[in-house]
Amino acid sequence: MFDIQHFSQINPPHRLLMGPGPINADPRVLRAMASQLIGQYDPVMTGYMNEVMVLYRELFRTQNRWTMLVDGTSRSGIEAILLSAIRPGDKVLVPVFGRFGHLLCEIARRCRAEVHTIEVPWGEVFTPDQIEDAIKTVKPRLLLTVQGDTSTTMLQPLEELGDICRRHGVLFYTDATASFGGNKLETDAWGLDAVSAGLQKCLGGPSGSSPITLSAQMEEVIRRRKCVEEGIRTTAHQDGDDEMIYSNYFDLGMVMDYWGPERLNHHTEATSMLFAARECARIILEEGLDVGIARHELHGRALVAGIQGMGLETFGNLQHKMNNVLGVAIPSAVHGEEVRKMLLEDFHIEIGTSFGPLQGKIWRIGTMGYNARKDCVLQTLTALEAVLNRLGFKSTQGAAMQAAWDVYAQESR
Amino acid sequence: MFDIQHFSQINPPHRLLMGPGPINADPRVLRAMASQLIGQYDPVMTGYMNEVMVLYRELFRTQNRWTMLVDGTSRSGIEAILLSAIRPGDKVLVPVFGRFGHLLCEIARRCRAEVHTIEVPWGEVFTPDQIEDAIKTVKPRLLLTVQGDTSTTMLQPLEELGDICRRHGVLFYTDATASFGGNKLETDAWGLDAVSAGLQKCLGGPSGSSPITLSAQMEEVIRRRKCVEEGIRTTAHQDGDDEMIYSNYFDLGMVMDYWGPERLNHHTEATSMLFAARECARIILEEGLDVGIARHELHGRALVAGIQGMGLETFGNLQHKMNNVLGVAIPSAVHGEEVRKMLLEDFHIEIGTSFGPLQGKIWRIGTMGYNARKDCVLQTLTALEAVLNRLGFKSTQGAAMQAAWDVYAQESR
Repeated sequence: MFDIQHFSQINPPHRLLMGPGPINADPRVLRAMASQLIGQYDPVMTGYMNEVMVLYRELFRTQNRWTMLVDGTSRSGIEAILLSAIRPGDKVLVPVFGRFGHLLCEIARRCRAEVHTIEVPWGEVFTPDQIEDAIKTVKPRLLLTVQGDTSTTMLQPLEELGDICRRHGVLFYTDATASFGGNKLETDAWGLDAVSAGLQKCLGGPSGSSPITLSAQMEEVIRRRKCVEEGIRTTAHQDGDDEMIYSNYFDLGMVMDYWGPERLNHHTEATSMLFAARECARIILEEGLDVGIARHELHGRALVAGIQGMGLETFGNLQHKMNNVLGVAIPSAVHGEEVRKMLLEDFHIEIGTSFGPLQGKIWRIGTMGYNARKDCVLQTLTALEAVLNRLGFKSTQGAAMQAAWDVYAQESR
Repeated sequence: MFDIQHFSQINPPHRLLMGPGPINADPRVLRAMASQLIGQYDPVMTGYMNEVMVLYRELFRTQNRWTMLVDGTSRSGIEAILLSAIRPGDKVLVPVFGRFGHLLCEIARRCRAEVHTIEVPWGEVFTPDQIEDAIKTVKPRLLLTVQGDTSTTMLQPLEELGDICRRHGVLFYTDATASFGGNKLETDAWGLDAVSAGLQKCLGGPSGSSPITLSAQMEEVIRRRKCVEEGIRTTAHQDGDDEMIYSNYFDLGMVMDYWGPERLNHHTEATSMLFAARECARIILEEGLDVGIARHELHGRALVAGIQGMGLETFGNLQHKMNNVLGVAIPSAVHGEEVRKMLLEDFHIEIGTSFGPLQGKIWRIGTMGYNARKDCVLQTLTALEAVLNRLGFKSTQGAAMQAAWDVYAQESR
């Protein structure tokens, strides 16, 4: 029998979220979301939308006019770009170095692309030459990359790929969900045609809004598929020459017309999530984007030192690790899930498990956004060491802490 | 030159949102959204997800297992259902009585459906016979309806359509975005196979989350198109016989597997929006769904009395008006946008403009969710009358108020 009295007020327990994301939101972001709503065409609201465009241009390091939000999780931003750019039958190339490369293949396939992949073992990334060779062979219309794949913690270097794409007439996209704000990303300097991200990693916000940016070239590709919605079209509207986009919600031509001066009605902007996205950007830009990235690098490095100091093995090529997440090999003496459970139940600290080939083999520990802080790193290390020792893994008590502290001490010199 | 100091803290002005939605969020919903995040597989989080399913079953008046949220605006819920249910080439029938009927056609066309429509003039709705006749002629696989079309303020009666659909082997969907929570909707009793909604109308929340419910029959249709994502599929997973769903984000089979006991990773649930959706449901069910609908009916009726008392004409067939929004003919003595501007600037009250054939002809005034209250109705009427009189429209001063008060007085007797 249903009884509403059984459903109490939302009151989640305190958690320190040190997994691969989502992580704790910055309290400022939560406060921004608690602001009362205003109408979607209220000049104050359209003013906030315009500000969001300016702020995210700074974060994406771009002059791209079309820098805005897709209303959904980070995956919605990926799909909006792929559905809007890929015409059925288009060839795409996906360098796969983890689960999110597979996701790009999966989404591209559902866009009816002809999908070609190259793969490296999990824990590694591609050289520019490997990608250029594949481009020469496949001759794709789009190169779809993941910048940081949380499944392996690796960061694919992108800086040389833009030139390669330009030489071969290929559109260049990256999914920066996991890396954005904690690792360098230069949309314009690197020649990216489209980038998508999310708030729930290094940006310190909740999942549910996906910032994206589109180059002028990408805009043109999308405009060629323009198809104005029946209920609001007038004789002044003209459709494009290319095949229509097979989605209304993810038709970025329509999303542009909603964010642009025409303000052509499309979805109803998710106001509270826009408030969140705006505050995330403001927090990072007040700190300074480069300063924030350096902060992610520092705490990531302290975590590595601590983990190694504890006698644990790290996963993958550390030269190519994202600043904000580390793979840690689960020692054979313990059961990975038992450790995670004890950390969660006794310390209220969450670290991540893994997918696919790494399942049961590594934990993933994040230091990102609001949680890229010394106290979070030190608390996590002490708790993890205590749990491991309790469960039979022998470390030199305290060595992890000293190693992490040494990193911080060097930095402040 | 970019300067972060120019971007101040989110601080929207107070607005009383009396348009067709979004409207002001209930402060309880805003407080729920300000709760700190927890991990997506934290037992507390999956517990909240399960509670959301239970709560929305009550709101949708259904036993449907698959009652959950799509992470996006209400339009995302529509598209998720249509993309998941419609196979390319499927015939669909859309009875169009306003803009959102056109939207269903538009989305269905992008799903590559063969779209058939019947139309009535804006301001009217269909009889069951009209719809049954069209079903006999078209023989569609799906009937796509709008319950309440905010563009015309009309509410399509649905109670007899389920039987008709069953007799003809047609899947029955309705978009209840604008009507949900403020008008009767009986998913099971009316034989609906799928319903989608949004938070930003009678539910008193922000845009950005779309509650949906799917019948067992609809589940089966979707399961036949199952296609497990490459990065997470195992040998235990088997694909369905029907053509795959041409979207990953909107593949409701995957969304079910994420909300179901397998908790197969898909998107990362938009935690803050889920908190909002849960609180919206809790508020309505504490009041009682029927009591809340009666409240919407009362304040809607008081608004009609007030508008008529002022000497203004209402729009459309009032027998079929939604409880929560009223079309008001703009008197020839004034300019509609000037009135709206003065209401917004001098009273901070927002009322709605109109689309398409009604543009410039009617305002739309909402009384919904948190704003379906006596004080909101009386404030709006006094402000509107004052503005109209200031701009040259002569009413019997005070008559509007007396008429509205009379409605309230009758009710409390």
